[in-house]
Amino acid sequence: MKRKPLILLSNDDGVSAKGLRELIQCLQPIADLIVVAPDGHRSGFSASITSEVPLRCRKISEQEGLKIYKCSGTPVDCVKLGLHALVPRIPDMVVGGINHGDNSSVNVHYSGTMGVVIEGCLKRIPSVGFSLCNHDSDADFSPVLPYARRIVEEVLAKGLPEGTCLNVNFPALSAYRGVKICHQNKGVWVNEFAESVHPLGETFYWLTGEYETLEAETRNSDYWALKEGYVAITPTRIDMTDYKVMDELEHWNLCV
Amino acid sequence: MKRKPLILLSNDDGVSAKGLRELIQCLQPIADLIVVAPDGHRSGFSASITSEVPLRCRKISEQEGLKIYKCSGTPVDCVKLGLHALVPRIPDMVVGGINHGDNSSVNVHYSGTMGVVIEGCLKRIPSVGFSLCNHDSDADFSPVLPYARRIVEEVLAKGLPEGTCLNVNFPALSAYRGVKICHQNKGVWVNEFAESVHPLGETFYWLTGEYETLEAETRNSDYWALKEGYVAITPTRIDMTDYKVMDELEHWNLCV
Repeated sequence: MKRKPLILLSNDDGVSAKGLRELIQCLQPIADLIVVAPDGHRSGFSASITSEVPLRCRKISEQEGLKIYKCSGTPVDCVKLGLHALVPRIPDMVVGGINHGDNSSVNVHYSGTMGVVIEGCLKRIPSVGFSLCNHDSDADFSPVLPYARRIVEEVLAKGLPEGTCLNVNFPALSAYRGVKICHQNKGVWVNEFAESVHPLGETFYWLTGEYETLEAETRNSDYWALKEGYVAITPTRIDMTDYKVMDELEHWNLCV
Repeated sequence: MKRKPLILLSNDDGVSAKGLRELIQCLQPIADLIVVAPDGHRSGFSASITSEVPLRCRKISEQEGLKIYKCSGTPVDCVKLGLHALVPRIPDMVVGGINHGDNSSVNVHYSGTMGVVIEGCLKRIPSVGFSLCNHDSDADFSPVLPYARRIVEEVLAKGLPEGTCLNVNFPALSAYRGVKICHQNKGVWVNEFAESVHPLGETFYWLTGEYETLEAETRNSDYWALKEGYVAITPTRIDMTDYKVMDELEHWNLCV
């Protein structure tokens, strides 16, 4: 009998999040799953790691083909610890999500879900992150699931080029117009803080903000695809080198 | 009289760190400085942001051409808050560091110092991060300083291409063989955890590890340059799209 593929799952909304729970159900028929997820919210944790305190990790559930662990660390810590101590063999995939909220465009840099995916990719494992553009803790993930499963099946069948992972975002709609292969939209967050004053007088700042695209009309940016009702798949490199700029810098005067 | 350039400085080792203090002294002669740095260690915080609690920020020092603020948030929070509330105009540069520790190769993803730099770059400001490959809190930064100043002067004079920032790493040596323009080394962290047992019996995991390059012989990777005694300058893109893979993905079967 052919062995099922093994997938390591994590997220940044925590082990109890609906998006993770629905993704588990969606992928259980096609893979053995090991879930190592944070014990609470870690949204916006990017690829952060925990070096100053030790990590705790506890198995909270086990059944045929599914083990679930909760971990005191960041999303990346979960992947690192899962690969180090909790998997019986190198997984066939690392999957992050389903995130409650948009990780397209520049949000890839802040996203804990994409932290999971980048860490999987750094470990040379085909890795994919799924995010729904809806922050509600009770968001409806049902339109996402058939696409998530199809994409995972395709990655299991075909692999991904080394050093490249997928950032997959879904619009907050009940149905999609199809799938677009996208590039990361260029844009900026503006008006990023709301000020409020503590009863004792100190000013506090809440992070908030609005995203402004700098290329509204560019077809096939992830921002554009989502706005048009498509599932946006953005292939994402872990090599951040700007090779085009290397030659130019060679001509700088950097002698001291 | 010509106005001095304005630089926003931050780091991930905290406002009291020696690397930041020496960078301030080094850049004071050539720029007005606004320092917004975390109130304690934020190493390994990547580009994480704080969304669930409000931020506090307090001015702790002010003199002609230098204001220093400490902030309760992450390195990226410091840059966002600095740009939103604390600078009198858009700075000419954002500078991160000098970090106590190596941010070359894959460490760019975990680095809070590079979080500072990526955030500056996302805000379309020329941004550079400096890191010394020495974790000691009392490391000797004196060989770094003339290079850091020269690089800042060159960026102030020439700018940087939009969407590209610089990740500059210095070997732990008393003198350097020169400067190399580098690409991000390909490699993996291995043996990432040390296990220990709590007095009450629970297993804990401390993040540690060894870096293994996958391209030891490649000249002009940042890892290679540092090993050879050069200052390594790696131009770093905030657009993480893998454009080469987009066509290939168009042929996948993603219908549901």
